[in-house]
Amino acid sequence: MRNILIIGAGKSTSSLIKYLKEKSTSEKLFLTIGDLSLDNAQKFAGDHENTKAICLDVFKEKERKEAVKNADIVISMLPARFHIEVAKDCIEFGKNMVTASYVSKEMEALNDDVKEKGLVFMNEIGVDPGIDHMSAMQVIDKIRDNGGKLLLFESFTGGLVAPESDTNLWNYKFTWNPRNVVVAGQGGAAEFMQEGQFKYIPYHRLFRRTEFLEVEGYGKFEGLANRNSLAYQSVYGLDNIQTLYRGTLRRVGFSKAWNMFVQLGLTDDTYSMEDSENMSYREFVNSFLPYSPTDSVELKMRYSLKIDQDDLMWEKLLELDIFNNEKKIGIKGATPAQALQKILEEKWTLAPDDKDMIVMYHKFGYELKGEKKQIDSTMVHIGEDQTYTAMAKTVGLPVAIATIKILNKEIKTPGVLRPISKEVYEPILAELAENGIKFTEKDVKFLGYNEDNIVG
Amino acid sequence: MRNILIIGAGKSTSSLIKYLKEKSTSEKLFLTIGDLSLDNAQKFAGDHENTKAICLDVFKEKERKEAVKNADIVISMLPARFHIEVAKDCIEFGKNMVTASYVSKEMEALNDDVKEKGLVFMNEIGVDPGIDHMSAMQVIDKIRDNGGKLLLFESFTGGLVAPESDTNLWNYKFTWNPRNVVVAGQGGAAEFMQEGQFKYIPYHRLFRRTEFLEVEGYGKFEGLANRNSLAYQSVYGLDNIQTLYRGTLRRVGFSKAWNMFVQLGLTDDTYSMEDSENMSYREFVNSFLPYSPTDSVELKMRYSLKIDQDDLMWEKLLELDIFNNEKKIGIKGATPAQALQKILEEKWTLAPDDKDMIVMYHKFGYELKGEKKQIDSTMVHIGEDQTYTAMAKTVGLPVAIATIKILNKEIKTPGVLRPISKEVYEPILAELAENGIKFTEKDVKFLGYNEDNIVG
Repeated sequence: MRNILIIGAGKSTSSLIKYLKEKSTSEKLFLTIGDLSLDNAQKFAGDHENTKAICLDVFKEKERKEAVKNADIVISMLPARFHIEVAKDCIEFGKNMVTASYVSKEMEALNDDVKEKGLVFMNEIGVDPGIDHMSAMQVIDKIRDNGGKLLLFESFTGGLVAPESDTNLWNYKFTWNPRNVVVAGQGGAAEFMQEGQFKYIPYHRLFRRTEFLEVEGYGKFEGLANRNSLAYQSVYGLDNIQTLYRGTLRRVGFSKAWNMFVQLGLTDDTYSMEDSENMSYREFVNSFLPYSPTDSVELKMRYSLKIDQDDLMWEKLLELDIFNNEKKIGIKGATPAQALQKILEEKWTLAPDDKDMIVMYHKFGYELKGEKKQIDSTMVHIGEDQTYTAMAKTVGLPVAIATIKILNKEIKTPGVLRPISKEVYEPILAELAENGIKFTEKDVKFLGYNEDNIVG
Repeated sequence: MRNILIIGAGKSTSSLIKYLKEKSTSEKLFLTIGDLSLDNAQKFAGDHENTKAICLDVFKEKERKEAVKNADIVISMLPARFHIEVAKDCIEFGKNMVTASYVSKEMEALNDDVKEKGLVFMNEIGVDPGIDHMSAMQVIDKIRDNGGKLLLFESFTGGLVAPESDTNLWNYKFTWNPRNVVVAGQGGAAEFMQEGQFKYIPYHRLFRRTEFLEVEGYGKFEGLANRNSLAYQSVYGLDNIQTLYRGTLRRVGFSKAWNMFVQLGLTDDTYSMEDSENMSYREFVNSFLPYSPTDSVELKMRYSLKIDQDDLMWEKLLELDIFNNEKKIGIKGATPAQALQKILEEKWTLAPDDKDMIVMYHKFGYELKGEKKQIDSTMVHIGEDQTYTAMAKTVGLPVAIATIKILNKEIKTPGVLRPISKEVYEPILAELAENGIKFTEKDVKFLGYNEDNIVG
């Protein structure tokens, strides 16, 4: 038997553990699921014969080292900042490691040691980052292998509600961490490249600079820029590319409505509001509007944001019950973002039968033999239920598949890695496709912004 | 002779030193002017018999302590963060101290030691903070002494260009540190109180939430909220006040135009732009506008900011030459704010004959014997020339006057202080008035927002 230690049994591990259990007999796997809460670990372990639950606190050095030592490979599903001590133990005891998190500077710094020991530390192998890397690199490498030259790469991912569960005016529900949604885009201007020009969008305009995309069978979406689209330029080897843009997908109209919150200042997470505990939803909104002895909060809001009486944006606000004077925020020292999250969670939490959906959209513009061409590649995946969500599946399956392939030495190039080499993405994408996570590629007309080289 | 050590001979010390020199015979003063640059110190010392220039580096402990030991009182005109070591020396050698800076936490922490030694450390005694404290507390104390109850306090200060030198469409020139003007309002939402309600304005709306004020003989101004109006609530003893607002003054129309820069993201000081050194003004602006193969930067700007063709805002942009494709930013690794500052300095630098102007406007709303009343108090001061500017005079004279009054033991209550007690503000305001810096008080109709207690 090969021992797999899985650290951190959260929502995102359901599909990961299910997949590994199913493979445990044919692949001779024994799973040890470690979590701060033994109950939690036990819940995921169930009564499967090849599975064991343990109580594991990664801050307790002795028990952490003991667990790592007994494993053949370690999967850390902890938040990214907690990986590093586990990673150091893996080096000490010569164990491979898999995470779905971005490579931190501390993790990157271990690269030489990891290589020297001949170990594989595979990171960013969830959905985003993860499946986006693999599916993009597969097409990029194919274009290059055929002698093509990349001109444009745009990539969008969205965690959304499935069409059959899409029941509110915002066409949105929380399918993952609500907090990340509320503060998304903050902390600096979005930076990207269009036709060789660097472009910057400040946070307060981010939600007004979207682009539209259509996925056959699923309708229209809008994409808004991620903070730093240029971070992967060198990782992907796109140094001479003209257009590089990474973004987040929402249903059309979401961003325009969300921008109301941004404009008022409701998404600010940098300061605590006075007496937020006893503040009603209405008082919360009114804190961001000028005082008036005569005008209602509603009229001040309409005037402030220039919302016409027949604008659907208004219905979106009413749907959230945001002007209610009875409901309380009820959080002590809440930031505006925390208060807003409270209001949204009341309406945007998935109902028991709701399903989620992951959508990915890549555009590859390239030149081949003097001709400009474009490939659009899309993937839509809908969750089974609230345990085996699209999010859990698209995060967990690549992690699980990579783990087995590392154990089987199909993936063996050592180092602190991202899944961007053929050795990694080819077998994993093939197996994901068998599990229903597959991309549809289409040759389309090149949509570069400046086909005729007009100066603008 | 009484020895006064002045540390830091910058632009703001001209009037301070002139005043002390004039008083040096009658008051038996000897001035030692210490600066990192001996030339600079010498320039301010001139050949006046009661004055000496020394080279002084406050980071060199021995020379700093030597200088402090030889003084009877120390005036530190250094940037606020450099006061603390000087302050500790003053405690060690039992010397009084005067600064025009905000009381830092480190300075505040010295209060017990300063009191124990019976010393006076007078801070915040420039113009803003300084004259604003003194002129406000004089009226607040008067209202209270008469049995009145404060309902409203609003206070605005602006450093502007004098009417006779006001020659551009923005009605603005840099009369002090341009950088502070470009980044003003950043770093958090503005917080204040209106009719007992806490109000918050995010940075990107700050310049659209102004209020208008008129000063007889000087026309209309607009006030925009400072970051934290509530900081002085307890310092001024205004704990039960209904409306508390502190702000900055500009000429009407400035904020609406400045908001164009804020909206585009040109005032962001948190990241460096790619290739800013070789970027033209036009390219700089274009970085914040969507790419287009056909549309001009001008049209994209008009569309983006919804500027009609006959809107004066457009002329304001043209006046800055902001679409020029020849002029370069020329600063390596410039933040957007630094690049914008470069463009503005070209047009907003004072000409040799230009004069500056300080405007202050306080509103005091109060209730006396069941009747609501209001006092408006205003001060306008125009500079003499580019050495004895209004800014240098209104910063330097209160510092100089306080220094002499501390030496003469007219001001003697010990501690780390702000000029908010009668002992301090009465004699200083009286002497400022003799020097042409005086307030005009007017009884006006109470302008509280909610005279009839309508709920809004």
